[in-house]
Amino acid sequence: MKFEFSPIGIIHSPYAEPVGVPIQGVYAEGAIGTVAVLPELREGLTDLEGFSHIILLYCLHRSQGYSLTCKPFLDVQHRGVFATRAPRRPNPIGLSIVRLLGIDDSVLRIGDVDIVDGTPLLDIKPYIADFDVRSNVRAGWYDTACNRQQTVADRRFMQKKKN
Amino acid sequence: MKFEFSPIGIIHSPYAEPVGVPIQGVYAEGAIGTVAVLPELREGLTDLEGFSHIILLYCLHRSQGYSLTCKPFLDVQHRGVFATRAPRRPNPIGLSIVRLLGIDDSVLRIGDVDIVDGTPLLDIKPYIADFDVRSNVRAGWYDTACNRQQTVADRRFMQKKKN
Repeated sequence: MKFEFSPIGIIHSPYAEPVGVPIQGVYAEGAIGTVAVLPELREGLTDLEGFSHIILLYCLHRSQGYSLTCKPFLDVQHRGVFATRAPRRPNPIGLSIVRLLGIDDSVLRIGDVDIVDGTPLLDIKPYIADFDVRSNVRAGWYDTACNRQQTVADRRFMQKKKN
Repeated sequence: MKFEFSPIGIIHSPYAEPVGVPIQGVYAEGAIGTVAVLPELREGLTDLEGFSHIILLYCLHRSQGYSLTCKPFLDVQHRGVFATRAPRRPNPIGLSIVRLLGIDDSVLRIGDVDIVDGTPLLDIKPYIADFDVRSNVRAGWYDTACNRQQTVADRRFMQKKKN
């Protein structure tokens, strides 16, 4: 069983390469980018401008292969890949919550961008606090992670090793 | 440019059909399901059990075609599809935040499930409040949506109309 997706647009950001990209949007405050949505899909952006935050789903297109365990940026131990947000995953789909700063025709201006330039966009969803904010959250290894100062990506996920 | 993804598992839930599924996890309190991850990917689940909530990305496999505008469950007006969480989207990828109740080998037990039975799973990510909770959120049409009592899916997205 295979599912095929075509990009609905391209994400542009200040980061030409994966190395140096903020590892999460919360570490990317002030970083501005754009999303060029395919002009033929422009009607789908109607009403989006009222949302302050949006969820972007995209292909981690610079990621090659995957490992079932990896050392996340914020930790010093190997963890199961599904317990991390690392890019080398069986299906390399990335998820970012970004600020929506404005829309000009089919181009979105976005803030707090943690995405490499040229990334193919798969979907846009509105971020809705009632649906997306959970309380009483336990976050496993992350809650005691001991490398909290690592807020930009290094080369660790650049290897081509295929699992 | 096309991207091909293979499911990493199958989501099981009490909902045999899309009609009647809670429209979001927050309306699915108490609904229990399971995620059968492919046994060969089991190592990727290491360390996941410490997380109380996880993000599931999946194929909205019962959705056919898409419309660039639609009437969301909670509203009485048409909205741009990217300003909604509706299933008939150009790339039908669903996103749910569910409770992780336990893991037995490669099977996850999950709560607050708003997903139809048999849904092909694409990815699992840990929900981390520091990354995924945003404050000062404005939610456009949703903030004044006037059909708040509609918390389970009806037939509106079952048509086969292709845009």
